[in-house]
Amino acid sequence: MNLVSIRDIYKDPKKYIDKEIKLGGWVRSNRDSKSFGFIMLNDGTYFDQLQIVYHDVLDNFEAVKKINVGAALIIKGKLIETPEAKQPFEIQASEICIEGVSAPDYPLQKKRHSLEFLRSISHLRPRTNTFQAVFRVRSLIAFAIHSFFNERGFIYVHTPIITGSDAEGAGEMFKVTALDLQNIPKTEDGNVDFLQDFFNKETSLTVSGQLNGETFAMAFKNIYTFGPTFRAENSNTARHAAEFWMIEPEMAFADLTDNMDIAEDMLKYIIKYVLENAPQEMKFFNEFIDKGLLDRLKNVLDSDFGRISYTEAVELLEKHNDSFEYKVSWGCDLQTEHERYLTEKIFKKPVFVTDYPKDIKAFYMKLNPDNKTVAAMDCLVPGIGEIIGGSQREDDYNKLLKRIEELGMDTSLYEFYLDLRKYGSARHAGFGLGFERCVMYLTGISNIRDVLPFPRTVGSCDI
Amino acid sequence: MNLVSIRDIYKDPKKYIDKEIKLGGWVRSNRDSKSFGFIMLNDGTYFDQLQIVYHDVLDNFEAVKKINVGAALIIKGKLIETPEAKQPFEIQASEICIEGVSAPDYPLQKKRHSLEFLRSISHLRPRTNTFQAVFRVRSLIAFAIHSFFNERGFIYVHTPIITGSDAEGAGEMFKVTALDLQNIPKTEDGNVDFLQDFFNKETSLTVSGQLNGETFAMAFKNIYTFGPTFRAENSNTARHAAEFWMIEPEMAFADLTDNMDIAEDMLKYIIKYVLENAPQEMKFFNEFIDKGLLDRLKNVLDSDFGRISYTEAVELLEKHNDSFEYKVSWGCDLQTEHERYLTEKIFKKPVFVTDYPKDIKAFYMKLNPDNKTVAAMDCLVPGIGEIIGGSQREDDYNKLLKRIEELGMDTSLYEFYLDLRKYGSARHAGFGLGFERCVMYLTGISNIRDVLPFPRTVGSCDI
Repeated sequence: MNLVSIRDIYKDPKKYIDKEIKLGGWVRSNRDSKSFGFIMLNDGTYFDQLQIVYHDVLDNFEAVKKINVGAALIIKGKLIETPEAKQPFEIQASEICIEGVSAPDYPLQKKRHSLEFLRSISHLRPRTNTFQAVFRVRSLIAFAIHSFFNERGFIYVHTPIITGSDAEGAGEMFKVTALDLQNIPKTEDGNVDFLQDFFNKETSLTVSGQLNGETFAMAFKNIYTFGPTFRAENSNTARHAAEFWMIEPEMAFADLTDNMDIAEDMLKYIIKYVLENAPQEMKFFNEFIDKGLLDRLKNVLDSDFGRISYTEAVELLEKHNDSFEYKVSWGCDLQTEHERYLTEKIFKKPVFVTDYPKDIKAFYMKLNPDNKTVAAMDCLVPGIGEIIGGSQREDDYNKLLKRIEELGMDTSLYEFYLDLRKYGSARHAGFGLGFERCVMYLTGISNIRDVLPFPRTVGSCDI
Repeated sequence: MNLVSIRDIYKDPKKYIDKEIKLGGWVRSNRDSKSFGFIMLNDGTYFDQLQIVYHDVLDNFEAVKKINVGAALIIKGKLIETPEAKQPFEIQASEICIEGVSAPDYPLQKKRHSLEFLRSISHLRPRTNTFQAVFRVRSLIAFAIHSFFNERGFIYVHTPIITGSDAEGAGEMFKVTALDLQNIPKTEDGNVDFLQDFFNKETSLTVSGQLNGETFAMAFKNIYTFGPTFRAENSNTARHAAEFWMIEPEMAFADLTDNMDIAEDMLKYIIKYVLENAPQEMKFFNEFIDKGLLDRLKNVLDSDFGRISYTEAVELLEKHNDSFEYKVSWGCDLQTEHERYLTEKIFKKPVFVTDYPKDIKAFYMKLNPDNKTVAAMDCLVPGIGEIIGGSQREDDYNKLLKRIEELGMDTSLYEFYLDLRKYGSARHAGFGLGFERCVMYLTGISNIRDVLPFPRTVGSCDI
């Protein structure tokens, strides 16, 4: 149809000024007087609207005057500079074709709606300013991540969603089955007969692609995953969803310091990319969602992330135990309140906490020479807490096997993983970035339901 | 650790020639004589190996001589030009550190292995030439797709994996549940009590993100999805997997012609990108996997795709009914044998077939004025058959509602979808590209199991 998009116009107005163009979009407002009217048109390609001026010379002037918010139009007209007006240019319409009307009960009238209400209409909320900004920035962050890793020669791996194993030996998993739930087949001894299921075994939705990712890192050196992961945890909080996306880079011949370096570079790259490519959206967040957002993000670009060991962090936090609901002591897992205190009050910038007690971390993390801690790292950021969790991996066959056995895990499920330590083992490290937390961090949006296009949470799976 | 990668060296050798560098990688072969030896080293970042020459001046010369295929090494040495030799340069090692040995039973010895055997060791096969090439090209294709859409301002949407509805009103779906399969709770009348399940309702794995994608297209104009999709179909063929990735662009204010234009541009963009960024890999496929691949792909770049209606295609195919197992007649669905005949024998290039009978296509496709066919398009390519399926969508509220009712579908599940036709409906179109089929098309690999990092097929869900 050769429509010009509003994005095209804002990117290079000179190309279109004083020319007859055609564009399609949706009505955000329509004001009219006797012989003329103004439509603010949004076509979804750009944050700002474009003003359309129309006159009673139009054949369908009376019909156009009655157009509701939300209607779809195809407009022909000339783009005119308007140096005196609020908008830098407007369209003088010569033809307005009503592509689709909007019924009078359209839920998105001009007034401001609460985020809670908008969650109940997830199929329409992308048409509001807030969600136009959120989901455009979400898309830009995803592209920034792919670009970052591609520029560095990392191979993108699609690790499997349906899995026969539990990557972390922890985390509640959704089951995947093709069995008839109404009539689950049972074996003679009364157990579920998974041999009759699609994969002839019990399967679940993945909680992490890391172990699979490691097999590729031991072949390609640098790889990353970017895919959906799942938790069947009954946590109804603003930070948890049952389905979320994760980025998991894994690097062979890399240690914990390399790991932190890449994580820091990646976060800075993302911030820089979004500030450059979504200035209107970021200004909007800074004004209406989270005042101070821009200063905070720019400050991150200009500073080195803090780096501190868990043991040092606990010493610092213990001095402030009065402020915490859960008191801190060596050996405890850090809660969000502790993480946020560290990054917001003590460091006032992102900080890596490293070398956690082995008992509160996963089996695959590399044991430090002290035999008490592992080469783990969590990256904490203001406003969120943990945004990245990672580690150097145990690369010693015997130590890994011992840990798997100590924890009573089923060794047979980890043979492939042990093989990586048997055939050309190399030091390697990686981390997981929660994609939605990253979007929250960059937009200031405080509820994970508002950065997921169609959130899945306890009791909620709409559309 | 500041390791130089083999990719870095091949990209800009001048930067490293005659310099002392450090690199890590895995041994592909190790030949030695009395006082010196040669190691072919691969570090996964580049298709070609790098030759390492070592001498008996090394402290650990005897140990290095005994190093097996598959071992991991960290090597210090000088990069030397070797204009007389097969390789353009080699490393003269001053230090070889054995990072990880390789046990003698390493399955990937120098001989050639069958693809079938390699499927049984999916955690090690990425270390072979074939799978280095396949998975690097897979990664490049993914990046090309993101770049293509990002350059055109399309918004990347993560449509949900867990869904409460069946996008196409067809296709067998995997169930997702957090219920205890051993003790499924039942209601008083004996049915599964889904109110006790995680989402308080019955849920499945998505077969398509299209319907959700449309809601975003009606807000952002141009969007695409790129995510995993699932089929619980008992098809044990070389072209079907239970879990595969799909790309689904959706464009508002676009018709079937726009749809074909974008699909054609996209495929050409991908081919061009891969030919430019993976010349070694593509040469390898052309020599060892599919002779004629390169000519075929280059031919695609230089030609316009064919475009033909289903009715015309059936007329052409009917003349060759002798060649087919399933005979063609108007109204029948085209089988792979027909699709391949059209694209391989008749057109000898990719071809779009359009305007199929409505009864063999999905409910959401736009009814043509003939009331018999819908504005559908399938893109067929040589060697594969259907690689893309798409359509213009029905944008008329009443026609869509009528079709949903005709097919006996549950209208209440599609209220959100009907809303898109109630509030600012606009002509729109989109398609689905099967990502694995695209990888097969570009590599010449004939079994989908060999382009999936960890294939999930009937009875098979390893690692």
